[in-house]
Amino acid sequence: MANIGFIGLGNMGGPMAQNLVKAGHNVSVFDLMPAAVQQLVEAGAEASESAEQAASGKDFVITMLPAGKHVESLYLSESFISNLSESTRIIDCSTIDAETAKKVAAGLSDKGFSFIDAPVSGGVAGAAAGTLTFIVGGSAENFEAASPILSNMGKNVFHAGDVGAGQVAKICNNMLLSILMAGTSEALQMGIDNGLDPKVLSDIMLQSSGRNWTLELYNPCPGVLDNVPSSNNYQGGFMVDLMLKDLGLAMDTAQTSKSATPMGALAQNLYRLHAQNGKGSNDFSSIFEMFSATKS
Amino acid sequence: MANIGFIGLGNMGGPMAQNLVKAGHNVSVFDLMPAAVQQLVEAGAEASESAEQAASGKDFVITMLPAGKHVESLYLSESFISNLSESTRIIDCSTIDAETAKKVAAGLSDKGFSFIDAPVSGGVAGAAAGTLTFIVGGSAENFEAASPILSNMGKNVFHAGDVGAGQVAKICNNMLLSILMAGTSEALQMGIDNGLDPKVLSDIMLQSSGRNWTLELYNPCPGVLDNVPSSNNYQGGFMVDLMLKDLGLAMDTAQTSKSATPMGALAQNLYRLHAQNGKGSNDFSSIFEMFSATKS
Amino acid sequence: MANIGFIGLGNMGGPMAQNLVKAGHNVSVFDLMPAAVQQLVEAGAEASESAEQAASGKDFVITMLPAGKHVESLYLSESFISNLSESTRIIDCSTIDAETAKKVAAGLSDKGFSFIDAPVSGGVAGAAAGTLTFIVGGSAENFEAASPILSNMGKNVFHAGDVGAGQVAKICNNMLLSILMAGTSEALQMGIDNGLDPKVLSDIMLQSSGRNWTLELYNPCPGVLDNVPSSNNYQGGFMVDLMLKDLGLAMDTAQTSKSATPMGALAQNLYRLHAQNGKGSNDFSSIFEMFSATKS
Amino acid sequence: MANIGFIGLGNMGGPMAQNLVKAGHNVSVFDLMPAAVQQLVEAGAEASESAEQAASGKDFVITMLPAGKHVESLYLSESFISNLSESTRIIDCSTIDAETAKKVAAGLSDKGFSFIDAPVSGGVAGAAAGTLTFIVGGSAENFEAASPILSNMGKNVFHAGDVGAGQVAKICNNMLLSILMAGTSEALQMGIDNGLDPKVLSDIMLQSSGRNWTLELYNPCPGVLDNVPSSNNYQGGFMVDLMLKDLGLAMDTAQTSKSATPMGALAQNLYRLHAQNGKGSNDFSSIFEMFSATKS
Repeated sequence: MANIGFIGLGNMGGPMAQNLVKAGHNVSVFDLMPAAVQQLVEAGAEASESAEQAASGKDFVITMLPAGKHVESLYLSESFISNLSESTRIIDCSTIDAETAKKVAAGLSDKGFSFIDAPVSGGVAGAAAGTLTFIVGGSAENFEAASPILSNMGKNVFHAGDVGAGQVAKICNNMLLSILMAGTSEALQMGIDNGLDPKVLSDIMLQSSGRNWTLELYNPCPGVLDNVPSSNNYQGGFMVDLMLKDLGLAMDTAQTSKSATPMGALAQNLYRLHAQNGKGSNDFSSIFEMFSATKS
Repeated sequence: MANIGFIGLGNMGGPMAQNLVKAGHNVSVFDLMPAAVQQLVEAGAEASESAEQAASGKDFVITMLPAGKHVESLYLSESFISNLSESTRIIDCSTIDAETAKKVAAGLSDKGFSFIDAPVSGGVAGAAAGTLTFIVGGSAENFEAASPILSNMGKNVFHAGDVGAGQVAKICNNMLLSILMAGTSEALQMGIDNGLDPKVLSDIMLQSSGRNWTLELYNPCPGVLDNVPSSNNYQGGFMVDLMLKDLGLAMDTAQTSKSATPMGALAQNLYRLHAQNGKGSNDFSSIFEMFSATKS
Repeated sequence: MANIGFIGLGNMGGPMAQNLVKAGHNVSVFDLMPAAVQQLVEAGAEASESAEQAASGKDFVITMLPAGKHVESLYLSESFISNLSESTRIIDCSTIDAETAKKVAAGLSDKGFSFIDAPVSGGVAGAAAGTLTFIVGGSAENFEAASPILSNMGKNVFHAGDVGAGQVAKICNNMLLSILMAGTSEALQMGIDNGLDPKVLSDIMLQSSGRNWTLELYNPCPGVLDNVPSSNNYQGGFMVDLMLKDLGLAMDTAQTSKSATPMGALAQNLYRLHAQNGKGSNDFSSIFEMFSATKS
Repeated sequence: MANIGFIGLGNMGGPMAQNLVKAGHNVSVFDLMPAAVQQLVEAGAEASESAEQAASGKDFVITMLPAGKHVESLYLSESFISNLSESTRIIDCSTIDAETAKKVAAGLSDKGFSFIDAPVSGGVAGAAAGTLTFIVGGSAENFEAASPILSNMGKNVFHAGDVGAGQVAKICNNMLLSILMAGTSEALQMGIDNGLDPKVLSDIMLQSSGRNWTLELYNPCPGVLDNVPSSNNYQGGFMVDLMLKDLGLAMDTAQTSKSATPMGALAQNLYRLHAQNGKGSNDFSSIFEMFSATKS
């Protein structure tokens, strides 16, 4: 069993850390919210009073933080680094831009520490169930070393490439996801507008070349699938505002690499218009509502 | 075994008629191209000298024609209708607009004949292998009557709804397909531009929420999958010009129903720009090349 | 002074016919709505009981009808044509597709009658003030013959080319107009979102390369200009639904000519989404509201 | 006459500094390229060996640098600031992001120095002719103080608002410009595809609601206007790559303020696709070529 410092116990980090505890690791946790720490302590983790303390002398340090600036300010802080033991391996599960991941990796490498970026997909439900997908960027050796730990929190662990590649792969996936969701929504609604039953149309497209993850597992039209956000008033799931965060990272990435992403850029703007209409906290499949509004 | 008149023996209609012959039906065929008729005769069909003759007194008349105007001028012709027997059932497999399908159905109904629209997906390869998907619009009774015949040419036969619904469902599917292909292409290329291996990125997205038919079975990036057009110089498959025909029908449909289809409209325009660059006869997955051109 | 038959006395046709009366012409009018006819009679026109009667033996027949089907069914009707005198010149001011204009012109030409398409821009206010712009398609001779009459209803009369060219030019203009309006709206709102005063930003862009008709004469941001729809709750002006009609014609035109119009197609879809939100009867500058909704 | 330090003597900065010399100011210049410095010395400026030296003890320091990082590293450098005299006023004419402008202004303000952002429009020709437009962000007092100097280099000097507002206004304008250019190009080409003469169509739209700066002064279709890049093989003018730089800033700005800019995002992606085809160094009106490629 490993000694693990876990920093960032939000909707995702909390259940992830719990799964590490369940797997038998010694987990020291820190979060700015005392209640989040308390919940983990009740699950069997050890409370730390600071990020430094949580990380001190551990085999692995895992972070799940909101944005690149938090990751950077933590890992490039002298006081933080000075608390690490020589053999500490660092795993950042936050979704941030690849440039920051590379910068942090370089900074840590200068001090002799290894770093992998390991953003996740699968959402809050996946975090709780331990079925997340980890998409890892880093050296093969660092990937191998971290894989057993990540496997305690998820069922798929992919090696996307060198440091930063985890972030790039995740953001490519999520940009594509936004396109699938918007495209599936408008195709379903066009069918409905022309008299089709959305369930029948979904079944047909699932057996045809329109098949995709959103149509199959996350149908945006209410009533087609049970147990998805669209059948629950678009509550739960993956919020529009979080999709917008990822699309922002995707557009930054495209800008850096001069990649043309017309479909992704349009999806981003549709989501922005949707968020402006007060839908930011709804599940991202609620983009369907943008298309299903009453025709004049 | 049924007596079948088959009109329209092009790239799709030819092999479809052959499969009916193989299944043991008596098939009378007509096409404006004598060579196409000759090929079917060699396979065991009977040549007709006109569409009227092919249809005369048959149990089923099946058409596979290029556009709505051909379907309309055939089925609304007095001389053609006068050759039908009282019990003839009409199946149109052409991809046309739903309005024309409804108009033809109404015209035939006035004379006492039944009609279903049964457009296909699966391409030339599916037509030859008998693995097409039929998407049928028409009454339940007409659907039931035609199903055994359609099953001789395909492996899936769906009932989408009333007359015209087959066309609508197919066009919804193909619009979505164009979005999946364009979106997948730009996501893969953004990954490549940022140092990822397209095969690794494809594998990751196939296990994640970016999964879709194009990524899985028709990857547009050369070298990721064998035996797909992208690994064969974008030859074979489903031509850009045919995708543009379907997107034209989709946009007409959206206009009639006042449906907003921003993603589909953008995909259409990307395909138009691509066709203008001389790619109209290439497979539609070649849209990937639009994104993979050298960055400046 | 000429003898003129005027058919179609709606929001546009009514004041146009009035201006012909004011100019001293003998104007016989017809409309399906008796009240519209009555209004013209009070202005000095002569009431007709049918389109045929209005057109009978006139120097000019002018139509202002809602759509291509109305124009086609009128001018390709045998009974209508048989009432025309040999020298009657036909002027259609309706906004319809160029294909129908050409078809009607060919049908009339077969019977020996001349036709020009002369769609207008300038709106209801321009119709009343006699300041419309006419964009004419037809032969030079027919253009010359009609110009004096058109000049009684407008201040600009352009010769765009052969029959149908008037419709094409108008639709190119209005597609561009929709792009200017949507683009100006999002640019102004981006400025506002970043702390700029929309009036100051408008003034700056008017002196810079962002200058355009919408910014200068039809500013979509409330309060920047007086006497424009945006400063009157988006009432009056050019309705979203009418812009959508023109964008529909534009997209049909693009489809026929295989033209790529990505910006126009996006503008169309933004207007569709806007209309779905109940804005179809508002002025088309209200697209600004789509962008100015509260940010989350 | 003022003592002015001018740093950055590229295609824009060089002629701008020359106009200050012509106006009679004492101008000390610095650039990393000795040839650029030499050219100014021949025009009557004084060469400096460093940015610090050029700025030392001056009334005004003016910079024209490629990107925000250059502006930031210069003005937030202790050694640079220590050379300024107490009364030095700083004017940055570079086109950079508003956030960096604000950050630099705040840093300088802490040391007691005033700063305005004063990006320009008008291009290389405008810089040479002294007809640039300056769009200024800063306090009213700082704006007033700088105006006479800016007027020596341009004919319009606008006050957009507080620090950063100059950058925002310029970027709003240039985003709109990209939309006007792309939209005008596709409208003109749709007309051409349907048989219209682009000169006739341009004349008509100039008198109608499609009027805009690009149509009037910078027509993208070769042969319509003389003395514009489109009639000179798209050489000279404002390069596609520079438009892409500005669109990158616009999209960053939109992201920060959560503004929806679907038209601007699409224009950006069309320009990216165009640049990938090797057009990055051509004038930005060459986007017309994207639409005018031969139809299949």
